[in-house]
Amino acid sequence: MIIAVDAAGGDYYPDNPIKGSIQALDELSDLTVILVGPEDSIKEELSNHEYDEQRLLIQHAPEIIGMDESPAQAVKTKQNSSIVKGLGMHKAGKCSAFISAGNTGALLAASTFLLGKLEGVSRPTIAAMYPTVQGVRLMMDVGANLEMRAEMYVQFAQMGKIFASEIMGFEDPKVGLLNVGEEKEKGTDNLKEAYQKLSALPNFAGNIEGRDIFAGKADIFLCDGLVGNILLKFGESIPGALNTFVKQGIKTLGLGSDEAKLVNKVLKASLAEFDSEQVGGVPFLGVDGVSMVGHGSSSPLAIKNMILNSAKCVDHSINDKIVASLK
Amino acid sequence: MIIAVDAAGGDYYPDNPIKGSIQALDELSDLTVILVGPEDSIKEELSNHEYDEQRLLIQHAPEIIGMDESPAQAVKTKQNSSIVKGLGMHKAGKCSAFISAGNTGALLAASTFLLGKLEGVSRPTIAAMYPTVQGVRLMMDVGANLEMRAEMYVQFAQMGKIFASEIMGFEDPKVGLLNVGEEKEKGTDNLKEAYQKLSALPNFAGNIEGRDIFAGKADIFLCDGLVGNILLKFGESIPGALNTFVKQGIKTLGLGSDEAKLVNKVLKASLAEFDSEQVGGVPFLGVDGVSMVGHGSSSPLAIKNMILNSAKCVDHSINDKIVASLK
Repeated sequence: MIIAVDAAGGDYYPDNPIKGSIQALDELSDLTVILVGPEDSIKEELSNHEYDEQRLLIQHAPEIIGMDESPAQAVKTKQNSSIVKGLGMHKAGKCSAFISAGNTGALLAASTFLLGKLEGVSRPTIAAMYPTVQGVRLMMDVGANLEMRAEMYVQFAQMGKIFASEIMGFEDPKVGLLNVGEEKEKGTDNLKEAYQKLSALPNFAGNIEGRDIFAGKADIFLCDGLVGNILLKFGESIPGALNTFVKQGIKTLGLGSDEAKLVNKVLKASLAEFDSEQVGGVPFLGVDGVSMVGHGSSSPLAIKNMILNSAKCVDHSINDKIVASLK
Repeated sequence: MIIAVDAAGGDYYPDNPIKGSIQALDELSDLTVILVGPEDSIKEELSNHEYDEQRLLIQHAPEIIGMDESPAQAVKTKQNSSIVKGLGMHKAGKCSAFISAGNTGALLAASTFLLGKLEGVSRPTIAAMYPTVQGVRLMMDVGANLEMRAEMYVQFAQMGKIFASEIMGFEDPKVGLLNVGEEKEKGTDNLKEAYQKLSALPNFAGNIEGRDIFAGKADIFLCDGLVGNILLKFGESIPGALNTFVKQGIKTLGLGSDEAKLVNKVLKASLAEFDSEQVGGVPFLGVDGVSMVGHGSSSPLAIKNMILNSAKCVDHSINDKIVASLK
């Protein structure tokens, strides 16, 4: 199992990708990691660590794609970036997966362009883990496809089902279509058509509403990338906003510092699921390869989990299963 | 000031509409309320209260439009419902406003059909109050228009600005366009066109993202009714979900019941802004009249606040100001 890791992506490179890679090597004995990025800075960081040199290789890639760079332009002009180099190696069969905490748009563009699409897939999608009171669920699309034709909802439902059952461990994941009401005649013409097409799937649970997200009424929340992206970023803002709301509440009630400390401790424990560290990352489903992206702020633990998850995607042949399910 | 109140709408009629009306009469000396609904049940509830008979009148309307009834069908077939009767009286000039906690879809359909649209308005919209760490903000559209042409964003921004400044007391309300990124070239073609048209408004603050909602980065969050409706219902679910998250957190930490009580007390105080009672309701902006809708679960206090807000809309001539702003 050879996995390429972007050592020039995210907010804390090359440190966090390198630390996470070493942790993954400790955990998975048949793993080899290729760090992709500027050789000098990788070597410098590596000099601080103990590791097995046979299993931690370097692929020099001097160009850096910034987090806010225009994706299409960056991928086109920076052929020696870690993203283009790493995915090129994956395409050439030199590794089984590529993971990165870098520019999501550039990763999606490069993954689609360099790896190509799986048979039967109109467009690759990006999913995200979403916290609910029932545990983490899958939301998709969260920004790759702002407008979706009806058949794309069906393809995404199929891909999500395979990812949720093979990688997240859901037994029979139910798909809910985010809409303005539960009845099948609710929503835009496009959503009505999607509902009709989705009804052919045995695991379709019908329309769900905004209030059903946190309740975990489905295992996969299907929506277009505009709705999903706004909900994803809104969800990520909730712990911080709650801290502020609670700070105001503590002030209103005039609590002492011991009481305030207790409340903050409980809040932190209560919102543990909002922490993306454990999740690691999510794959671009629908591309002909395993390409996974994590949050820009990914910690070493998040990078490690992303590497382990991508290995799981390879082990479980999820792409073969996706192609079979779309036939 | 004569205001008609739907005494057959919401989850707790006729009790709550009647109690709220009596409270409003106590607060506003020049107010007369006409309760619209089945005469017998109104009289029965009124017999439990002390009130000024000269200022609390009854308009018999025997038919009931259920909360889940198909709006268009209900409005068409139930001519003797409180909604159709009440809005008919408003159209005929027998009252200055109509307020209801009933079926939102039926209210929107009847308001649009019976009152007509204001000059320059393509489609009426429904806005909602949204809690943020900076205080309550306005979100629109939240379900009346699932798909919006670019010029509708501009009209809604203008109407929202007038409502926010005249009724909510914002000095110079800033309008943010909900999108997947801040840059003007982000989003669908429709959103890009909307951005361009909105740029002509002096109070346009550009694109905002999901994470900017709770941060209160704008005073008016502009979005289509699909995004807005999902966000509205998601937002309404947050206090309940948090209670569950915190219950789990308390269990994880193994806290005692006194500590748990303290935490729940703080949580309640912290989330006071999520309580829709104080807000009362929101108007259908863009119709030629004042028609306001509240949550189905509206308490007497919420009904009272809705009546007072509708009186304020009349006093401030917000419709004249909307027509002038759209010229």
